[in-house]
Amino acid sequence: MNKLLVLIQCKDEVGLVANITRILASHQLNIIAMREFVDEEEQRFFARISCSNSIENTEVLKLELQERLPQNALIEVVPKADKSIAVLVTKEFHCLSDILIRNYFKTLGAEVKCVIGNYENLKELSEKLDVPFHYISHENISKEDFESAIIKKLDQYELDYIVLAKFMRIISPNFVARYKHQIINIHHSFLPAFIGASPYQQAFKRGVKIIGATAHFVTNDLDEGPIINQQTIHVNHTYGAKQMAIAGREIEKSVLSKALELIFDDRVFVVGNKTVVFE
Amino acid sequence: MNKLLVLIQCKDEVGLVANITRILASHQLNIIAMREFVDEEEQRFFARISCSNSIENTEVLKLELQERLPQNALIEVVPKADKSIAVLVTKEFHCLSDILIRNYFKTLGAEVKCVIGNYENLKELSEKLDVPFHYISHENISKEDFESAIIKKLDQYELDYIVLAKFMRIISPNFVARYKHQIINIHHSFLPAFIGASPYQQAFKRGVKIIGATAHFVTNDLDEGPIINQQTIHVNHTYGAKQMAIAGREIEKSVLSKALELIFDDRVFVVGNKTVVFE
Amino acid sequence: MNKLLVLIQCKDEVGLVANITRILASHQLNIIAMREFVDEEEQRFFARISCSNSIENTEVLKLELQERLPQNALIEVVPKADKSIAVLVTKEFHCLSDILIRNYFKTLGAEVKCVIGNYENLKELSEKLDVPFHYISHENISKEDFESAIIKKLDQYELDYIVLAKFMRIISPNFVARYKHQIINIHHSFLPAFIGASPYQQAFKRGVKIIGATAHFVTNDLDEGPIINQQTIHVNHTYGAKQMAIAGREIEKSVLSKALELIFDDRVFVVGNKTVVFE
Amino acid sequence: MNKLLVLIQCKDEVGLVANITRILASHQLNIIAMREFVDEEEQRFFARISCSNSIENTEVLKLELQERLPQNALIEVVPKADKSIAVLVTKEFHCLSDILIRNYFKTLGAEVKCVIGNYENLKELSEKLDVPFHYISHENISKEDFESAIIKKLDQYELDYIVLAKFMRIISPNFVARYKHQIINIHHSFLPAFIGASPYQQAFKRGVKIIGATAHFVTNDLDEGPIINQQTIHVNHTYGAKQMAIAGREIEKSVLSKALELIFDDRVFVVGNKTVVFE
Repeated sequence: MNKLLVLIQCKDEVGLVANITRILASHQLNIIAMREFVDEEEQRFFARISCSNSIENTEVLKLELQERLPQNALIEVVPKADKSIAVLVTKEFHCLSDILIRNYFKTLGAEVKCVIGNYENLKELSEKLDVPFHYISHENISKEDFESAIIKKLDQYELDYIVLAKFMRIISPNFVARYKHQIINIHHSFLPAFIGASPYQQAFKRGVKIIGATAHFVTNDLDEGPIINQQTIHVNHTYGAKQMAIAGREIEKSVLSKALELIFDDRVFVVGNKTVVFE
Repeated sequence: MNKLLVLIQCKDEVGLVANITRILASHQLNIIAMREFVDEEEQRFFARISCSNSIENTEVLKLELQERLPQNALIEVVPKADKSIAVLVTKEFHCLSDILIRNYFKTLGAEVKCVIGNYENLKELSEKLDVPFHYISHENISKEDFESAIIKKLDQYELDYIVLAKFMRIISPNFVARYKHQIINIHHSFLPAFIGASPYQQAFKRGVKIIGATAHFVTNDLDEGPIINQQTIHVNHTYGAKQMAIAGREIEKSVLSKALELIFDDRVFVVGNKTVVFE
Repeated sequence: MNKLLVLIQCKDEVGLVANITRILASHQLNIIAMREFVDEEEQRFFARISCSNSIENTEVLKLELQERLPQNALIEVVPKADKSIAVLVTKEFHCLSDILIRNYFKTLGAEVKCVIGNYENLKELSEKLDVPFHYISHENISKEDFESAIIKKLDQYELDYIVLAKFMRIISPNFVARYKHQIINIHHSFLPAFIGASPYQQAFKRGVKIIGATAHFVTNDLDEGPIINQQTIHVNHTYGAKQMAIAGREIEKSVLSKALELIFDDRVFVVGNKTVVFE
Repeated sequence: MNKLLVLIQCKDEVGLVANITRILASHQLNIIAMREFVDEEEQRFFARISCSNSIENTEVLKLELQERLPQNALIEVVPKADKSIAVLVTKEFHCLSDILIRNYFKTLGAEVKCVIGNYENLKELSEKLDVPFHYISHENISKEDFESAIIKKLDQYELDYIVLAKFMRIISPNFVARYKHQIINIHHSFLPAFIGASPYQQAFKRGVKIIGATAHFVTNDLDEGPIINQQTIHVNHTYGAKQMAIAGREIEKSVLSKALELIFDDRVFVVGNKTVVFE
């Protein structure tokens, strides 16, 4: 079990690994798993180092690393703690229920603080599984007011991430900006194919033989944010758009679940419009 | 082993299967596998029926079926025979060699009559594996003349299908029209994502976590023809566009190989811009 | 949507499909999907025919089919109705919760009448999701009495199937005999590898690069019953037995879920120690 | 492109990564990819470090590492060079041809020095693709003499690996001992299921829904050596043993090809009866 996790993102230069590991060794930290990656195009270095023991004063360690690493290095020293999240939903239950069940049995790697839905039909499940549900309708209200209501509700919690678990409203740049790299969406196609509405209808029309799902961070460009995880399954001529949607639910659930596991385990770095994922 | 194959495509109506199978039974034909499908949107019926025995006069059978089926029914009675094909290539060897090896060991389900290349580098392999190679350069020549030269060469053979095994030239509507539903292409992405040139470069830029390949019939619209088969594989942040291309070769080869197997085994029907594939 | 389903299993002979479909046509039944298979080794014929309309008197149809088909033909005419099931569990929640959630939202294709557990820890979830939970401990009691208590409880319901959703007790021939081809188990390996206890420990020791899960009907021979569905996932040297077990849960859930979907949709036939699955 | 590769296997202790990377940095070596793994059960450390530049005197580097690492550390400093291999075959062409084609186009990462077959039918292909073929029949000869003849032939080449590409003879401990961890076999099942002869026949009898292939190092225990790579594909009730064998060929080819790629790229470490594979 890793007791201490060191996450680093900085400009690449010769000797980085040597410097970092020397500092860790000087604290008697025992590295049990180290993943690093150099994005040669961007000249950026990424590392995730987990240690089997910990130290009391992580601030000192962080400072020592800061001194030795290139300017503007992003350094996190994480004595592993569970994340806090909110989940936004519309009507579909499959992604939400998977998250709520894991949360209920404490295997999610995060705590679901609340569920917010623009329909009421998932209220009962959320509450049965001991998570507060806030109903905020988008009807008879401007998009701005709708989002303000959501943000107000979110602000009542201290959140690390907001998960859009089949939340079928497009969110505005203003909303996105508040939670940079903190909003995760599950899109029901293998992006960049079938961006936007009704991807299964689009897939059916095109006669594809595979359908997919994509978990990604939300940015201002619809379905264009950094991709975290994708999967596909085979379909055939007997699938109408509806059957595709039904089959697709399984991978939507599975792709989102995997993406969240990776994020909650601090395995995902964002760089530009891409991700580095230390699986 | 199927000795006789009956392929039918027609307007759907009640009692089709009963009528067809009654006629087959009256000829003492023993059905060992039957696949049928009704495209409810298009109101079209498709069937592939294989029998463990055969009959001498298949024309009579065909006529009897014709009489009983809706007007304009497409009926084929096939005493299984190998198909004849030509393969068009540019420089990459992986798809071609897979086809040539299967051809060499007679497991392709078709005979490769010739290979035509707009570069010379695959000549040696083709000839070593006993298939004539025709070099037709696209350089210093109009597209029209280039295609005329190819067509002239193709006309020397009686061909069922033309396989574009990483042939990197866009072919003109005139060429396509000559060989309706007879030209099969392998595209190096999971269409409709990354249509057109340099799909791996596009995929790398977008930061996708899966890449794919698509075998499809060629129509006038670039990369828009009926899809026969698709597959995907996982990639990650360590893949540059070049590594994606290398990894992609394996599925290009595999997808094309599978598509050809299905086609040569008479398992693929084209309907509009889609396929019905009885796998 | 299929309104009427005809399931047939009988000795193979020439003209079966013609005879069956003629009878259906005479009732004005419109076949929208037909799947048939001939097991040539066993000389047995299997068919699943779904019609888009229905008829009032299915008994007459059944009798007409009976008259025309070989002796001892198994014929079912099914105006589609939901199945009733009981779920047996021990401590693990992942398979049960998947079933309960689908049941809760009425997408399971069956109704869960009760959950029986030999530990109490899944009682709360079951009851929250509106399914009665019966706690029957195996401790301080003979195997015979333990099973009698379970059977007594099961007898209170009219059940089509009993699902062992990670029920970690071996059940006796007596129990199995009562519910022939009605008990479905999920085994946490790709059978026949790693039969019996602790398959993940066995897999870890062997250093395999894939692990799997198998859904099968239960027979008297441990883990030897007819296989319905199997899946595998990749693992690597970083997985200990525990990590394999965690990763394995996802496919256990998925494999069982798929197997149940196939069974509840009348797509699975048992023949000897194998299954015919019309997917 | 990595110019220098450092491979290390030794007893685990605190500070290993720091010590290793410090030494590399002192030579101005720029690490572009580093993979390490600690087998906690065996208390062993594995690392594969690739550098974007190289140095002239790799022996000095090796000595410095030796001094700092635990006793008996296995250290390789590899200025990447192609491996030399021999391929042993019986009658089936699919694995051999894949290797020969890659060899022919210089994308194998190794050079095929010769093919040895106990039948003659793959001679023509080997020679066409410019690789000498040695025919050594196992008939009318003792196993010992058969193997001596093979070994004698192998001794004419300097070989890194011997690939059994569907070589259907069991090799003796004496043979195995000569080439420890140098013989790679492709077995046509997902080991440990269906060890030994006729795995597809066994798989058919058991009614499995997936079949697989396994590439492994050969040890004295039949099909029990360290597994390098495995894959599976789905089959169904329509597959007889023959169809399984045909479908299986594709993954046999693919699994062996992937295993060889990993080995030739120095990504595979053997530890006891397992492998560490830095994919």
